[in-house]
Amino acid sequence: MQSRQFRLAKRPVGEPDQQCWERVTETLPGLEANQVLVKVKYISLDPAMRGWMNEGKSYIEPVAIGAVMRAGGVGEVLESTDPNFAAGDHVYGTLGVQDYAVISTQGLHKVDPSLAPLERYLGVLGMPGMTAYFGILDTGQPKEGETVVVSGAAGAVGTVVGQIAKIKGCRVVGIAGGPDKCQYLIDELGFDDVIDYKNEDVKAGLKRACPNGVDVYFDNVGGDILDDVLTRINFKARIVICGAISQYNNTTAVKGPSNYLSLLVNRARMEGIVVFDNVKNYGKAAQQMATWIAEGKLKAKEHVVEGLDTFPDTLMMLFRGENFGKLVLKVDHDQ
Amino acid sequence: MQSRQFRLAKRPVGEPDQQCWERVTETLPGLEANQVLVKVKYISLDPAMRGWMNEGKSYIEPVAIGAVMRAGGVGEVLESTDPNFAAGDHVYGTLGVQDYAVISTQGLHKVDPSLAPLERYLGVLGMPGMTAYFGILDTGQPKEGETVVVSGAAGAVGTVVGQIAKIKGCRVVGIAGGPDKCQYLIDELGFDDVIDYKNEDVKAGLKRACPNGVDVYFDNVGGDILDDVLTRINFKARIVICGAISQYNNTTAVKGPSNYLSLLVNRARMEGIVVFDNVKNYGKAAQQMATWIAEGKLKAKEHVVEGLDTFPDTLMMLFRGENFGKLVLKVDHDQ
Repeated sequence: MQSRQFRLAKRPVGEPDQQCWERVTETLPGLEANQVLVKVKYISLDPAMRGWMNEGKSYIEPVAIGAVMRAGGVGEVLESTDPNFAAGDHVYGTLGVQDYAVISTQGLHKVDPSLAPLERYLGVLGMPGMTAYFGILDTGQPKEGETVVVSGAAGAVGTVVGQIAKIKGCRVVGIAGGPDKCQYLIDELGFDDVIDYKNEDVKAGLKRACPNGVDVYFDNVGGDILDDVLTRINFKARIVICGAISQYNNTTAVKGPSNYLSLLVNRARMEGIVVFDNVKNYGKAAQQMATWIAEGKLKAKEHVVEGLDTFPDTLMMLFRGENFGKLVLKVDHDQ
Repeated sequence: MQSRQFRLAKRPVGEPDQQCWERVTETLPGLEANQVLVKVKYISLDPAMRGWMNEGKSYIEPVAIGAVMRAGGVGEVLESTDPNFAAGDHVYGTLGVQDYAVISTQGLHKVDPSLAPLERYLGVLGMPGMTAYFGILDTGQPKEGETVVVSGAAGAVGTVVGQIAKIKGCRVVGIAGGPDKCQYLIDELGFDDVIDYKNEDVKAGLKRACPNGVDVYFDNVGGDILDDVLTRINFKARIVICGAISQYNNTTAVKGPSNYLSLLVNRARMEGIVVFDNVKNYGKAAQQMATWIAEGKLKAKEHVVEGLDTFPDTLMMLFRGENFGKLVLKVDHDQ
């Protein structure tokens, strides 16, 4: 079996360019014990991937130079040497940026395409959904009537964070780029207000949209927007640090939040989260999310781009704020 | 009664210079109901005073232009219109930078000069002690065997933070400036190790002194040292933001912590504290501290400078790192 693959060719300085990738076609090895051959159908594109391309200590090992780029994905099992997985099963796992994968069944989960479209298991029912769920509920601890602000609000995590905060009875304000996304957050997802950071001064927007200040800020972007929100937080506010996409391609130092002493003035807290810490509670969360979806309280939105070979360009959409909902790559198997 | 006073003449830009102060001699008014006339004996000089000189929203109102500079102090009651206070009583309160004060008895507490020297009620038995106590215990939550790092370690708050962390069974590392302070922390206060930021690279020092990483960081200084510590924190570390003395006289923006994404990588927390929130528990804390002092587990150190008129210069010692222990101004009444 041949597999088209994107391998990491070099570590990026700033934005990952084409030279970072080597596009190869490899003959996959035969299966060893407890492995499966998977036909990859959808590949998850996530801001965190930029971090995995860097050298050095983080919450997960960097991708080695020459290795297939790490990515979550969903696909169909074609062959299996593990009695728990059979041909025809659909699975979620770290399948990598390739169209076929031979991988260990450890860490592989079955998903049911009759319950939800496959790509949804990369979004609201997958890692972004889990990130949002545990981040906003456990770390953000929103209380009824409080004001919750989320940046990257039209992204995979942000859309879910905002909707969960609405379910919890909060006033929810999203920060997103462009009128289409902003309109969608209000009209479709029921956000109370939005700030279009591409067309409005964020500080002024926060003043307008958060007349009672900010109790919880769920940060996906970092940079100036984090600093702006820090000027508006309330006593005992909680800031959830989920990501900082505005800073991931910096060639200079990350911009630290100049206004961090607002934490002192307001006895507020800033706390980092990584979804993997909640793995033993994923099941319970997924069940709750599925219930909310069934009740019409939680809507999913995926942004599907087709074609494995578009990977380098499609990945960059994340850093340009061009994705609208969860960005997934649909693998084309007919080329 | 005449009172020598330092009044705030203008808001400083950067370091407070002599022009910020107006030294006047005022005739104090007679007492209204529930007021006392206090002979001020010791005035507390604290980094927070720099913040009170600025315009704008903070955890406490700024000092108005033309007002007597706010300061904690201890003194002796000379006259009283409140039956709860009598001439001869010693009191702690916000007495201001002056040698006699007429003030309301609200917020005034009696102190006992037979139990401890008066100046100690401005240090370990006063606000800095309370700040250290609640900050390290409630927010830092140190556990036995963990590594606790404190900056400004030879200051009023830092000395107490480190000693309490030792009492709780932690490995305690202080960051202070100069060999005398560092030696004192080791020899007299029982710190496990020290980093002399004036003579050693802090990052290298942290690597040397914290082989198992940093579980709790109590930050009094901000700036580069906060950034250095962020590179060494452990999983679920707690960073207590008590102050940022390195940044208080900035004329440009405060340096935000560039390495704040270490909070994400390590699922760590950064939280601001203000001592006043614990006012209802001061009594319990003071009792515990007094017990530790009696048991020889907690030592106090005050740095006493004499002469009200030295106030503008003496205050600056804080920002130059020249104080060694709690800085207090002893008021001279015989001029």
